[in-house]
Amino acid sequence: MRIAISDARALTEAAMQSVGHDAREAAIIADHLIDSELRGLAYGGLARALSIIERIRATPTPRDPITLTRETPASAHFDGGDNVGYLVGLRATEAAVSKAQAGGVAVVGACRTWYTGMYSYYLERITAAGLAGIVIGSGTQQVAPHGGTEGRLGTNPIAFGFPTAAEPVIWDIGTAGLMIGEVHLKRRLGERLAPGQAFDAQGRPTEDPVAALGGAFAVWGGHKGSGLSMMIQLTAMLMGQVVAPGPQRDGGFFVLAMKPELFGDPDDFRARAAEYVDKVRNTRPLDPRQPVRMPFDRSRAERARRLADGAFEVPDAVVSALQRTVAATDDRGGPSGTIRRSATDDRR
Amino acid sequence: MRIAISDARALTEAAMQSVGHDAREAAIIADHLIDSELRGLAYGGLARALSIIERIRATPTPRDPITLTRETPASAHFDGGDNVGYLVGLRATEAAVSKAQAGGVAVVGACRTWYTGMYSYYLERITAAGLAGIVIGSGTQQVAPHGGTEGRLGTNPIAFGFPTAAEPVIWDIGTAGLMIGEVHLKRRLGERLAPGQAFDAQGRPTEDPVAALGGAFAVWGGHKGSGLSMMIQLTAMLMGQVVAPGPQRDGGFFVLAMKPELFGDPDDFRARAAEYVDKVRNTRPLDPRQPVRMPFDRSRAERARRLADGAFEVPDAVVSALQRTVAATDDRGGPSGTIRRSATDDRR
Repeated sequence: MRIAISDARALTEAAMQSVGHDAREAAIIADHLIDSELRGLAYGGLARALSIIERIRATPTPRDPITLTRETPASAHFDGGDNVGYLVGLRATEAAVSKAQAGGVAVVGACRTWYTGMYSYYLERITAAGLAGIVIGSGTQQVAPHGGTEGRLGTNPIAFGFPTAAEPVIWDIGTAGLMIGEVHLKRRLGERLAPGQAFDAQGRPTEDPVAALGGAFAVWGGHKGSGLSMMIQLTAMLMGQVVAPGPQRDGGFFVLAMKPELFGDPDDFRARAAEYVDKVRNTRPLDPRQPVRMPFDRSRAERARRLADGAFEVPDAVVSALQRTVAATDDRGGPSGTIRRSATDDRR
Repeated sequence: MRIAISDARALTEAAMQSVGHDAREAAIIADHLIDSELRGLAYGGLARALSIIERIRATPTPRDPITLTRETPASAHFDGGDNVGYLVGLRATEAAVSKAQAGGVAVVGACRTWYTGMYSYYLERITAAGLAGIVIGSGTQQVAPHGGTEGRLGTNPIAFGFPTAAEPVIWDIGTAGLMIGEVHLKRRLGERLAPGQAFDAQGRPTEDPVAALGGAFAVWGGHKGSGLSMMIQLTAMLMGQVVAPGPQRDGGFFVLAMKPELFGDPDDFRARAAEYVDKVRNTRPLDPRQPVRMPFDRSRAERARRLADGAFEVPDAVVSALQRTVAATDDRGGPSGTIRRSATDDRR
């Protein structure tokens, strides 16, 4: 169905409050999920709200507050307290931005979190502050290393961002052949995966999203991509992620933010970077009908189009499931987040 | 021919002194090149010494000293003074290590340099100091972005390293489908490139190394690999690299070094990391005869084998060319590095 952006935001906020988030927290999560919808990444949008609700309801112990565990002028480390990553990631990013603005550079880590979303979201914050940055993280061990068929890696995203004299350069990839949200969405919609992208629990190739979620996804990029994913995994572990079999209770998240001033004249860098972007776009193309694109071009265009439109498309099943959640909460006269269900596998 | 490691080292040092390096500088460069031979990476070994000599002789202006241009407690920036990257990279790495040991984290950049070698070499230093790190750099614009046929990227290496309770984890890749040293070696040996790896100056596919050096290499990893390479390019530009058409006079180099202590108990991390490496090696393999390997396994084994052997194989043509260079210098009774030739294209 077509839904107005403001209605989607209100519904998402209400759904997040229904599982025990306060208004400020619900607004942070909803902003991230709505931005995902605006960019056309449905698997990380309103459908993700359902996964968040499932995860919270399946967790027997209540979340703790996000806590600063270690700090230096150029670093910080947070225990995410089993809060959803949209909250923990933003807290870590804000700490990195403020420390880098003060001292030039900051490295910030977090653990005990899950679903940190689109790393480009954090890099838009970092670059808007005039900083360059890298964001790295990991979650559930769902991806097989090159040559293997068992999960030893998360979908392990990595992202970079740079301010320029024009629009910032933002790049954000996952190092799995599939994204976990994509697989959950296919599961919800009853669709199949493409061949060669996943293994079942016995290590056999599968196209069934449920079997893939119980087995492992193939890694992207052969041995080089597998190596990159391992480095992301170890970075997340350095941030405190404890890797364990089964559903991941503990994701790791890392942010580096740096002032361009540390290395030279920032205006000169911004001008050279903008010029470079133009030069990349103007590369002689292999196919004259397919000009070379910069990362984030598509996201920026999709977002502008939907913002102008004031609405986007969301599967009916997703909207009605969220509406039912909110209605059930209203019926009980309070958030259901305080009602803890028994522990079940949140990967179901 | 088979050459004793000590003879190869002495020959390389003499060759480096013949183009104006002092004994300490020659030893640093030779150590890196010999380590490349020990790891079985011939294109970055003694053959590279010939490329260094060509580059220095083709440069009309003498190099400057490496200069510290900017510094904070957690950062430094060096003007490489057109020195070979083996010297500049080590200087930047040493600064990053000492600053990270003192303050916990350091970001160090350098520009005006070329041929920075194997980034794993620097990460072995960083991890030996108990630190985790990332090294990123760029040089000659020799690689076409995905969908293009002109050089807008360097071969753009990226490397990570982590200390563990067992051996450190080291990972080091180039983001081009080819390495520049590999192409130069094929040129010297009269060999062809594999299909689909390069474009000539007109943008047509080519297998001729000379045409590829005058055109562009294909990037690794499709649009994701191309995006990673662009991020490496922008990081190098942030370090001061000025991207210009033609032979690159100005490479950029970046080092991040971090104490594990910033984020948690370092011994706990080292133990978890070593355990994780075992777990990766023990992943159920797709092919039972091909166990999953960790990055650097092959390099470590090759190095141990050649060190035990005390010698390695180097093409006769490479050894005799180095010997001629050294003999010519001895005949003239002094280093030829002060004898400047006219400027020619160092990519010939």
